[in-house]
Amino acid sequence: MKTVQRYQKGYFLPPQTDWSWIRQEYPQQAPHWCSVDLRDGNQALVTPMCLEEKIAFYQMLLRIGFKEIEVGFPAASETEYQFLRYLVTHDLIPEEVTIQVLTQARENIIKKTFAALKDVPRAVVHVYNSTSLAQRQQVFRKSRREVKELAVQGAELVREWAEKTAGNFRFEYSPESFTGTEPEYALEVCNAVLDVWQPSVERKAIINLPATVEMSLPHVFAAQVAYMSRYLHYREATVLSVHPHNDRGTGIAAAEMALLAGAERLEGTLFGNGERTGNVDLVTVAMNMKALGVATQLDFSFLPDIVSAYETLTRMTVPPRQPYAGKLVFAAFSGSHQDAIAKGMHFRREHPQAPWTCPYLYIDPQSVGRTYDADVIRINSQSGKGGVAFVLEEQYGLQIPKALREDFSYYIKGISDRQQRELQAAEIYQLFRQRYEPHSDGMYVESFAVHKTGNRWQAKAVLVYGAEKQVVEGVGNGQLQAITNGICAACGLDIADLVYSEHDLDGGTGSRGMAYIGITDKTGITAWGIGVDTDTMTAAVQAFTGAVQHHPVFSKQMSFQRRILSAIAVGGR
Amino acid sequence: MKTVQRYQKGYFLPPQTDWSWIRQEYPQQAPHWCSVDLRDGNQALVTPMCLEEKIAFYQMLLRIGFKEIEVGFPAASETEYQFLRYLVTHDLIPEEVTIQVLTQARENIIKKTFAALKDVPRAVVHVYNSTSLAQRQQVFRKSRREVKELAVQGAELVREWAEKTAGNFRFEYSPESFTGTEPEYALEVCNAVLDVWQPSVERKAIINLPATVEMSLPHVFAAQVAYMSRYLHYREATVLSVHPHNDRGTGIAAAEMALLAGAERLEGTLFGNGERTGNVDLVTVAMNMKALGVATQLDFSFLPDIVSAYETLTRMTVPPRQPYAGKLVFAAFSGSHQDAIAKGMHFRREHPQAPWTCPYLYIDPQSVGRTYDADVIRINSQSGKGGVAFVLEEQYGLQIPKALREDFSYYIKGISDRQQRELQAAEIYQLFRQRYEPHSDGMYVESFAVHKTGNRWQAKAVLVYGAEKQVVEGVGNGQLQAITNGICAACGLDIADLVYSEHDLDGGTGSRGMAYIGITDKTGITAWGIGVDTDTMTAAVQAFTGAVQHHPVFSKQMSFQRRILSAIAVGGR
Repeated sequence: MKTVQRYQKGYFLPPQTDWSWIRQEYPQQAPHWCSVDLRDGNQALVTPMCLEEKIAFYQMLLRIGFKEIEVGFPAASETEYQFLRYLVTHDLIPEEVTIQVLTQARENIIKKTFAALKDVPRAVVHVYNSTSLAQRQQVFRKSRREVKELAVQGAELVREWAEKTAGNFRFEYSPESFTGTEPEYALEVCNAVLDVWQPSVERKAIINLPATVEMSLPHVFAAQVAYMSRYLHYREATVLSVHPHNDRGTGIAAAEMALLAGAERLEGTLFGNGERTGNVDLVTVAMNMKALGVATQLDFSFLPDIVSAYETLTRMTVPPRQPYAGKLVFAAFSGSHQDAIAKGMHFRREHPQAPWTCPYLYIDPQSVGRTYDADVIRINSQSGKGGVAFVLEEQYGLQIPKALREDFSYYIKGISDRQQRELQAAEIYQLFRQRYEPHSDGMYVESFAVHKTGNRWQAKAVLVYGAEKQVVEGVGNGQLQAITNGICAACGLDIADLVYSEHDLDGGTGSRGMAYIGITDKTGITAWGIGVDTDTMTAAVQAFTGAVQHHPVFSKQMSFQRRILSAIAVGGR
Repeated sequence: MKTVQRYQKGYFLPPQTDWSWIRQEYPQQAPHWCSVDLRDGNQALVTPMCLEEKIAFYQMLLRIGFKEIEVGFPAASETEYQFLRYLVTHDLIPEEVTIQVLTQARENIIKKTFAALKDVPRAVVHVYNSTSLAQRQQVFRKSRREVKELAVQGAELVREWAEKTAGNFRFEYSPESFTGTEPEYALEVCNAVLDVWQPSVERKAIINLPATVEMSLPHVFAAQVAYMSRYLHYREATVLSVHPHNDRGTGIAAAEMALLAGAERLEGTLFGNGERTGNVDLVTVAMNMKALGVATQLDFSFLPDIVSAYETLTRMTVPPRQPYAGKLVFAAFSGSHQDAIAKGMHFRREHPQAPWTCPYLYIDPQSVGRTYDADVIRINSQSGKGGVAFVLEEQYGLQIPKALREDFSYYIKGISDRQQRELQAAEIYQLFRQRYEPHSDGMYVESFAVHKTGNRWQAKAVLVYGAEKQVVEGVGNGQLQAITNGICAACGLDIADLVYSEHDLDGGTGSRGMAYIGITDKTGITAWGIGVDTDTMTAAVQAFTGAVQHHPVFSKQMSFQRRILSAIAVGGR
């Protein structure tokens, strides 16, 4: 039956549209959060959770801070029935927590639901029936009046059964497939249900508007919610709730705008698990609020643990680009982003009390239990000097001079490009040392001695080339200059420029010094060397040796010098 | 440096806020689509694409129908440089297609960019610099005036280089991190750039507003876009573009609302690949439009192939709940959803010309190359009779009577619950036959003969029980009744009720008939049997035999009958 489908909008604007809510920039307070992970989330799993898995998931929801938790549809599944009984009989519902169960508006189902609820300390009985035009027409083949009557009967039944069942009950009604229902009809049905329940400010009813299928842009959904909020009877005695799905990928925005338009409660799941494209992701909605400075009462500071438990229990995977939670959501591979983040973090060290404004990171990854090392600056062929420098500074304490950063980052980029893969911090550090430390098979300085006469330093150093040794002497304004002058004079190296920097590596007395030296010949070719030692001057001499070894011109001269010394040694024997 | 972060909004409302765009329900026409998969998407990959992979991806973008494709940042990466040269030298840019390259506003980078662009038939040169407060303060440490000067110099440089390079060039400017920029300042910078370019209606410039980091609810972003649209100079000669990211999970909504607020062009990627939480997903935005009846010019009818190519080329995975594209986005496990979908599909067969309104499915899965069999109705412990019946009807042509559906779906639910897994269609069919067909080790009817006398049928049948045979005779108003009466009388079966239905299985002459029989004893216990044969009456007799074999009371009576016959046979020998 493959045919070209005709598509047109499947939703209805309310008879009065109120857009005044749009002048608010964001919700100023958190909604009542209701997790439907154990019901709507669970029913969408390829393999639904077993009893033990549900208990573990429930405990996690409590730890996050949920106070309202829909625990299942006990009349529809034996596992959900048992799970509810388990919670009640094992006294697993803390004082500030209300559990919620879903039931259809049919007598035998409501009866079984209340059997499951016996002795519950606090429960919301959530009754629903579908009200959309399409379902009335295609599924029930019933009129508006008949479908409303179904809702009213359901409301009466839950009221009656609540009266004759031990426990503490509140009621919730959902005009299911609200987004495909004419808003004035949904209003009529909800008001008829409220007339049955006669809610009071002390014992509020919940009217929940499900975007069972998300059908419109989020502002249209918000206009539907605003209409319901304005014209619903018993408004002060009613909590207006929404239950967005995500068919158009705009579930988060729909939730946020519904809150602006009058909704006070939000049903959703962790990471948006749920039928088809999923429910609204409560982690994202809550963290979006937190990022705007609004308190949420939910704790996602241990988000990586939540992800890991969720993946085990549901057998689903949190995608790498899932806001706040995904593996890659704080990762910066691109050079310019890495550079800006490194500078932003530097700014934060200077201004620790300033609000968070770091470029390219909407929130501090640490707020959701992530680390800079593993999650933010990651190195591949797209990366630049800022990123490479950031990784070596954060993980190994290296403060690499700017020109050396450039040299090294081109080298690293090339390796990643040729090997077509990401490089890890430990690898990068290894490559840095290999590239710039002196090799033991090149010329090195075995020992040196310096002393000062007036303003001038005099130095004597023993160079080693394989089996040969040479003693050199030099003078200079500083110790390093005296030593390098001695080496250059003896070996004929014509150094046009030398840059030197050094820093403490470990902090405190007895710390090692880290030295960086770049030498340039008269044609403009520069090479770099590094050295580490508890003695600063020893580190500097190592760095100089490394630079000479790696310089294409000077290293050749040193080989020549070695051959000369060998020849002399042979001649002398 | 773990500290409690202070968060507050990081964006700025424009000095004039225009909300009038909100009265539009959805964008009435498709934007200019610009894919940035090969640049922004690529730079966010753990392993960026190599040359061959980029070529394959580019060909796929052409096949989908993209006319504007950002192919890279040629001055920043050797692979991107080579890729661009490959496209130019191999004549891979079709006539209606314009490629686009990104460059920073710095002379050496712009120079290298134009070297890569030489002889290009049509290219947009996209120059950017960051304008946000945070980046001015933390990264550049430059004033507003200095950062604007950077943009103007960049604009001048690309204009100059375009004049002296062979090729056909248009220009795009992005005030990068627009969402963290004061809108009046972004406007000032963009207008200064346009003053340099002096665009005309014949040769429009593109001003692109990136939500480099998504920082606000989508309507706030739209208000920023509306302000730019209203106050931008050369408005008629400018294409206003947006480039949403997804840090708050509201990128799709931000794109859609920006289009309402005046944007005419949209930059994004397939499945939202891109830095961190990703770019806006163009598949979803386009399919959202299509679902509202708007023509998009993009072809996603072969979406499963696109998913598969994307996953191979980027080494990323399209998540199972990704709108339109994910594995699970059309899946219904829950019984009530399955039932409604089955009824909705039935309604569609009755009204093939009606617009798409099937419950729980926002679009026809076939519109994006999916099938009902594999993708929609899926069976696990949450499933109901509607789903099981739908699978057996769609895949095997079975029109199972309602009461049998209920019996079988409880059975299937139990199996799935105990085995904690989803069941496949073939398995379900196998289980159906096992449960209801007669077994060869029970009583069966070897042959039968019928003839009519007046209004009454007379039947003679040979029953077989293992080694024993028995000939029975009966009369009835119909053939089946005559046969079953004969069996019942001989074996002492007291059947209170019998329901029978039958349908053609294959269509056409020579088709097999499929028979279903339910028998109920006087205590109300019902059992079912099925039979298939090219002869309808043979199928019915099989079904009857199956029902007797599976009925707890009648099957015992048959065993008893068998023992009696054995005793007689032994006695007779």
